[in-house]
Amino acid sequence: MTSQRLHDQIRFILEIDKLKGVLRRSYLVDETRRENSAEHSWHVAVMAVVLAEHANEPVDVGRVVRMLLVHDIVEVDAGDTFVYDTAGADAKPELERRAAERLFGLLPGEQGDELRSLWEEFESARTPDALFAAALDRLMPVLHNVHTRGRSWHEHGITADMVIGRNSRMADGSRELWDYARGRIEEAVESGHLLPAPHSQKGS
Amino acid sequence: MTSQRLHDQIRFILEIDKLKGVLRRSYLVDETRRENSAEHSWHVAVMAVVLAEHANEPVDVGRVVRMLLVHDIVEVDAGDTFVYDTAGADAKPELERRAAERLFGLLPGEQGDELRSLWEEFESARTPDALFAAALDRLMPVLHNVHTRGRSWHEHGITADMVIGRNSRMADGSRELWDYARGRIEEAVESGHLLPAPHSQKGS
Repeated sequence: MTSQRLHDQIRFILEIDKLKGVLRRSYLVDETRRENSAEHSWHVAVMAVVLAEHANEPVDVGRVVRMLLVHDIVEVDAGDTFVYDTAGADAKPELERRAAERLFGLLPGEQGDELRSLWEEFESARTPDALFAAALDRLMPVLHNVHTRGRSWHEHGITADMVIGRNSRMADGSRELWDYARGRIEEAVESGHLLPAPHSQKGS
Repeated sequence: MTSQRLHDQIRFILEIDKLKGVLRRSYLVDETRRENSAEHSWHVAVMAVVLAEHANEPVDVGRVVRMLLVHDIVEVDAGDTFVYDTAGADAKPELERRAAERLFGLLPGEQGDELRSLWEEFESARTPDALFAAALDRLMPVLHNVHTRGRSWHEHGITADMVIGRNSRMADGSRELWDYARGRIEEAVESGHLLPAPHSQKGS
């Protein structure tokens, strides 16, 4: 006899299999295809284990990892919103709120609440754990772009000022990682893999 | 100035991007394609968070999650070995040992050692954390097969006795999850999604 509790947990596990079909804008380092949100979640979770020492404030690595494992689950219903998509950003909170309700709601009550509040903490980006998790989530696509000659930046007409504008909040979680990312962004501009800001193209 | 330490850590992060290109035998639940080892690692890590209460002995969920995040990284060099591939199983330990040496060796000394010993603990499958992690790693492909009408079982001529033989050790980590899996395996035989053992086909 399978308990209702285990049955519900397995149903959740099977439902989130769909995250493997949600495509992000970034390409794998070998450029064979675009990355999906499930493998991205694995990658940032490993990143948290490896880079935790670079957080501005001490973090609970286990919590950061759990947060990153669930941070994109709402995309099963809401899809991925490109970090530079300001139009899509308006509808996103409500879509994702409903997705969180349905998806985490598949789990037994207190367990669903716990994962949902972990996701909400990530979204609010105020605690040290959430700020560091968000920093890693921003660093990853910068790394992918830098190592695919700016492929996704080019495809979407992204310029250096946009990359810096969107990602400078990485410093709230890790000044060290933002310094690193900023150095790579500057190199990408120098090597022609990222367009400089429009005004700097016209000027000087 | 980027420290050598951060440089090495990022190099490891970029290198393991290749795990997204290592294909397993199992299919996604929607059957659109085979699963890769990176998204599988995410999925079993979430599973550990959700199903930890079903472990035979109390486990350190954070350790189990970290173990599962790194458990397949050696496949970047060694490839995936099908759980029913007994020929491939002979060469596997040496191939994976060398892969672990190279891949975890990209990290700063003590950090690489730590992740490598976590992987070795998983492989040895003796501690409660490793036994539970291994149980989840066995349960996942059973779930995927059960929910794709036995697709990967059919493709490779796997019969019920093989599935039970290979997976009964799941009970060492979680009797409850093995009971659950065994129930699903029996249902799969009844509904024709899994061939019964050869002798039971001939007999009765």
